[in-house]
Amino acid sequence: MTLDDAALKNFGFIERPTKNMINIDPLQTGGILTEDARRALVEWGDGYSICDNCGGVLDLIKKPPVQEFVHEALPEFLGVDQARITHGARESKFAVMHAIAQEGDTVILDGLAHYSSVVAAQRARLEIRKVPHSEHPDYYIDPEGYGTAIEETISETGKAPALALLTYPDGNYGNLADAKKIASVCHEYDVPLLLNCAYSVGRMPVDAKELGVDFIVGSGHKSMASCGPIGVLGVNDDNGDYSDIIFRKSPTNKNKEIELLGCTARSATLMTMIASFPEVVKRTRNWDNEVADARWFSEKLEALGLIQLGQRPHNHDLMFFEAPNLYEISTRVKKGRYFLYKELKSRNIHGIKAGLTKFFKLSTFQVGRENLSYIVYSFEQIFKKFECWSFISFLFSIDH
Amino acid sequence: MTLDDAALKNFGFIERPTKNMINIDPLQTGGILTEDARRALVEWGDGYSICDNCGGVLDLIKKPPVQEFVHEALPEFLGVDQARITHGARESKFAVMHAIAQEGDTVILDGLAHYSSVVAAQRARLEIRKVPHSEHPDYYIDPEGYGTAIEETISETGKAPALALLTYPDGNYGNLADAKKIASVCHEYDVPLLLNCAYSVGRMPVDAKELGVDFIVGSGHKSMASCGPIGVLGVNDDNGDYSDIIFRKSPTNKNKEIELLGCTARSATLMTMIASFPEVVKRTRNWDNEVADARWFSEKLEALGLIQLGQRPHNHDLMFFEAPNLYEISTRVKKGRYFLYKELKSRNIHGIKAGLTKFFKLSTFQVGRENLSYIVYSFEQIFKKFECWSFISFLFSIDH
Repeated sequence: MTLDDAALKNFGFIERPTKNMINIDPLQTGGILTEDARRALVEWGDGYSICDNCGGVLDLIKKPPVQEFVHEALPEFLGVDQARITHGARESKFAVMHAIAQEGDTVILDGLAHYSSVVAAQRARLEIRKVPHSEHPDYYIDPEGYGTAIEETISETGKAPALALLTYPDGNYGNLADAKKIASVCHEYDVPLLLNCAYSVGRMPVDAKELGVDFIVGSGHKSMASCGPIGVLGVNDDNGDYSDIIFRKSPTNKNKEIELLGCTARSATLMTMIASFPEVVKRTRNWDNEVADARWFSEKLEALGLIQLGQRPHNHDLMFFEAPNLYEISTRVKKGRYFLYKELKSRNIHGIKAGLTKFFKLSTFQVGRENLSYIVYSFEQIFKKFECWSFISFLFSIDH
Repeated sequence: MTLDDAALKNFGFIERPTKNMINIDPLQTGGILTEDARRALVEWGDGYSICDNCGGVLDLIKKPPVQEFVHEALPEFLGVDQARITHGARESKFAVMHAIAQEGDTVILDGLAHYSSVVAAQRARLEIRKVPHSEHPDYYIDPEGYGTAIEETISETGKAPALALLTYPDGNYGNLADAKKIASVCHEYDVPLLLNCAYSVGRMPVDAKELGVDFIVGSGHKSMASCGPIGVLGVNDDNGDYSDIIFRKSPTNKNKEIELLGCTARSATLMTMIASFPEVVKRTRNWDNEVADARWFSEKLEALGLIQLGQRPHNHDLMFFEAPNLYEISTRVKKGRYFLYKELKSRNIHGIKAGLTKFFKLSTFQVGRENLSYIVYSFEQIFKKFECWSFISFLFSIDH
């Protein structure tokens, strides 16, 4: 590519086609900015603006109140002794793995772990052992599976795993495993537990100390109404001096934390997290209503012949559906497996991945009962349309 | 901290006090957003918005044109075979070090390297050997110093360094060392060279192939008019299959690049880089004028008794000044060493670190001749004011 004027015209400002649609994308419902965050973006958008008054340590900046946010508000919010900002949940996971494990050590992952947990372990050059889950339709993780996996690791390698991880909830079914019980099983073997809360911190109440977990990671762009990439990392020192290890300082640059490369979210992303924080705290207190909305929505879709997999009744806005009837339609319509995406798009609904009909996930978080009703109605209309078309094409087939 | 309403009021939207000031902060002059980038921020601000149409690989997204940007425009711009987006220059450096070196290997750094290069090497558990520079006032890096450092490493450890790094320019003096010659010296020993271009890519023309370097890293928030954190990483495979190593894929998740944890700048930050890119490309073509502005400004400050350290005549907008006369004023005025910061602030000028008077750095990048003239005039006024005060207080001392 030659960077002439014609080529450069492909860049510059680009519109976002989905911006005014009703959004049920599990990746996106928890990351929609609050009004304060949208203003903060413009106010602090310039690169390194947050560093106007930095004395050398990002999380100790007093104006704007980064220090108060990172060292007082966040630890309280997460229920930890120490908290830091990172580039995201995956970067938090890698930081923990890289800091507390040695190459070749084993990490235990739940069988429903997000791919980024796998890749973080691979980047840290760790061996992975997975705790199995039950199959369709529950996808249940038995806490005792952690004990088994730890014992198998010890018997095969002669060394306990460096870390165990639980995805809370998992990113496919939205299942919330028994984190407290799993932490207790891991601690019987002195194995610390990391809770991947990319889909929970910022949506629902989560307290690391209450659950007894050692590390908690969250995602700003996924669940804390922040412009990303940004995440949080909380460390609970009840079972070990973990924060000393993870936040160890450079021997040569005394105020720089090695594992964070000195500083992380050094820009407007952090100002959006701070801007949204008051609303984020408040919305976690509204979690029961969000769960009620999710259950209501699930019931309505099931009444249309879809099947909600995972925990029932469901405890999270992220839900996975099996839809044999939508799949059946896809096998006989012109647009094939893209029909559902296109039908929803034409009804101003975004978030079910293009090409999926038989199995898909969605999120009802902060969509609200009115929009959820409209989505249910839209599904009804789609079924009606294609049942009707089916009947018409049946008539035509008789004609021929 | 209890997260009650009173505590939460400390967060939310916060104004940026310096937003309308003339900015000469070296960290910030190259990161000021273009108008297109400012619009992109609002358009794409929601978390994970860039992933609307992601098929599983961030840099292969076609709408918006991420694939075209990362795989066509950026390699051309950087002069490399492969390019990727990262969270910033330091994260790019860590990715290269972590991928191509083994724990305990040595990395050669220039004596003027940014602290983040040191911390990245420490995070990757590498040994650091520095190439010395000449002292005050030049701070010159002799290319042959790389040969010496490599030979010393081999003779002491029995193994060649895994990597050499040059900061181009360094972040204190804005010196541009002879990168081409250094690359050639390193390659005599088969040691790859990484060029840290946090202060050059996006400001001035830099071409990795032309300079013969193997890796190039840049910073979006520092020099590419982007909202950060965001950076670029370019790999030139002329001297080895480096991109295969750095961008190796997960054995279990076949389309995910391990070293990037699957994906990096998965948000509006990337859309601001894309939005600013046309202007950024164009401004690098205006580099000669920027250098002319820097030299003009340096002459004017030297006429006031300040001394510009580093290369002379200077070749970069980032400049370091020694100011014995400002220091002298600071020793006898009420506000002490904060007087300069406060005087400049009262004249709407931001960017010289609070508390510095004897030695400080600044940047003239895109400040423009008119604002630079105003800054020179402001320095003149400050000198006049304090020389005058000095005279008045001398008179008072006679009275007593």
